[in-house]
Amino acid sequence: MTLHSEQDYLNLIDRHFPSRLDTLDTVQLGRGDDCAILGINGFACVSSDLFLDGVHFRRSYFSPSDIGHKALAVNLSDIAAMGGVPRAFSLDLMVPEGLGFDFWGQFLTGMAKLAAAYEVVLVGGDLSRSPILGTSIHIWGEPGPSGRLLTRSAAQPGDLLVVAGHLGLARVGLHMLEVKGTAAIHDYPLSTNQHLRPRPRVAEGLILAANAEVHAMMDLSDGLARDLPRLLAASGNLGARLAITDGTLHDEVRRFSERQGVAPELTAMLGGEDYGLLAALSPEALRDAQRDIPRLEVIGVVTQEPGILLNDRPYANAGFDHFGE
Amino acid sequence: MTLHSEQDYLNLIDRHFPSRLDTLDTVQLGRGDDCAILGINGFACVSSDLFLDGVHFRRSYFSPSDIGHKALAVNLSDIAAMGGVPRAFSLDLMVPEGLGFDFWGQFLTGMAKLAAAYEVVLVGGDLSRSPILGTSIHIWGEPGPSGRLLTRSAAQPGDLLVVAGHLGLARVGLHMLEVKGTAAIHDYPLSTNQHLRPRPRVAEGLILAANAEVHAMMDLSDGLARDLPRLLAASGNLGARLAITDGTLHDEVRRFSERQGVAPELTAMLGGEDYGLLAALSPEALRDAQRDIPRLEVIGVVTQEPGILLNDRPYANAGFDHFGE
Repeated sequence: MTLHSEQDYLNLIDRHFPSRLDTLDTVQLGRGDDCAILGINGFACVSSDLFLDGVHFRRSYFSPSDIGHKALAVNLSDIAAMGGVPRAFSLDLMVPEGLGFDFWGQFLTGMAKLAAAYEVVLVGGDLSRSPILGTSIHIWGEPGPSGRLLTRSAAQPGDLLVVAGHLGLARVGLHMLEVKGTAAIHDYPLSTNQHLRPRPRVAEGLILAANAEVHAMMDLSDGLARDLPRLLAASGNLGARLAITDGTLHDEVRRFSERQGVAPELTAMLGGEDYGLLAALSPEALRDAQRDIPRLEVIGVVTQEPGILLNDRPYANAGFDHFGE
Repeated sequence: MTLHSEQDYLNLIDRHFPSRLDTLDTVQLGRGDDCAILGINGFACVSSDLFLDGVHFRRSYFSPSDIGHKALAVNLSDIAAMGGVPRAFSLDLMVPEGLGFDFWGQFLTGMAKLAAAYEVVLVGGDLSRSPILGTSIHIWGEPGPSGRLLTRSAAQPGDLLVVAGHLGLARVGLHMLEVKGTAAIHDYPLSTNQHLRPRPRVAEGLILAANAEVHAMMDLSDGLARDLPRLLAASGNLGARLAITDGTLHDEVRRFSERQGVAPELTAMLGGEDYGLLAALSPEALRDAQRDIPRLEVIGVVTQEPGILLNDRPYANAGFDHFGE
């Protein structure tokens, strides 16, 4: 079976995203008109991300299903970062020549499985021929039962910094996949999986946002070295004292760092695309938070003094910037 | 001045889209966090469009400002097509190497002028290095004072088909720009302008949606030949009898068709990217509609019988499909 017309692509999308889920109250009108219509009473949190071949992923080691999964996962993570409940998304799809029915079937399967797991509805989008394969996904979420959406801008001196997720794991996966291709999966199963198929931490985000003593939150997409300064700056020129020890880090991160001859805490600092959640909370709130999220790791404390101390030494680094020279 | 880092691009965007407009009630939290937060009580209409170099525009005859303008205009047109009021948009920007500060300054100026004219706020987006220049814009609108958002799916037999806009004008502009480049602007000023800088018909959309006797509406993005069947199919396998005469068409469309040796009504049928509005309304509503929108042209009538008759002859054509072979 081949795809000859725009309608062929739309039919394939319809098969993977049947409209029965469109009966959620949020989606008043689904795909097929000039706009979708969402029913929202109060607040919606909205975000969007590009996911481009050769920039955000490589087809040499991403399966079509991985591409579909991760394109949506990085957007779900933005809703998780506010403590929201993801509801609906739209898909702008850039379609190069030469990818057939099998590719698109697997791509949509990967995306549709994740969408079903998180109960988000595909409400629209755009399709275009393109020189490159890529997606732009926009996503809408709503506050959870607590009614609270949590920004990154109200951390306070004395707050503990906690992370839900494994610092550096996706970076290890990326590095090994770049070096060894899919053969890396055998030696670094969790790292490579973290890079190829990250799990958006929606449940953790909801728990943290519902706790009034959690003051600020964001997801870790560009690495702690780059993301933590954003949280500290948004909260008013604050600083942090970090203690990232071997005990905090995943086995594979330690093993990788040892083999590379780098300090594991540096692998952790630079680890982009972890899609863990970073939050600042008052020390009294830690016990409740760790009861609900057992693997919530304390990595440091917010300070009035600007700048970052890592394991008692000043830390200065930019993290990942793909516009950097 | 050059752009070296992601922050340089963000600073340039901030300069062109100052956050003072972000005080609209709709925008509870603007750019800079993981998500924007919109305040919506009731319904939002949402849409998105890709705008890619070499697919939707060419840099040989689109100025940077034209690119910025049209990327947003085609999205505003989707809100107009529902009779909504556009409120906010997000911009996913694909940034190839080699475009400097001047290019981006003009691009953002073109986009920001249109955004200011329509009072839409830039609330977020994503930036990425990319092999190609392009945008994906997602837009949110709300119902106007009438509270009504108008779909394409309730046209009735006997309804008049009306168009706000000039059928075929953008197609003439595209054709002449492809053949003569910017030299075409002199001979075909309105056609080329219609292709390069379409005007979204938000005011007309609001007027039509407020009239209960207007039953269906959509914008003309792929040409009447392709868009009208969508409206007729969505309304339940209806047909249409069209009368498109020289009097209905713009001077430049007639002149172009004469020189090409094609019937002007065929130029009109195939005219993609007109971004006019097509609506179906009861005959009794025409007078009110034409009082409020003086140039609303009647082009035909909806029939119970499927199929399209154009000037009394059967018409069958697919219109534009950039996946077609």
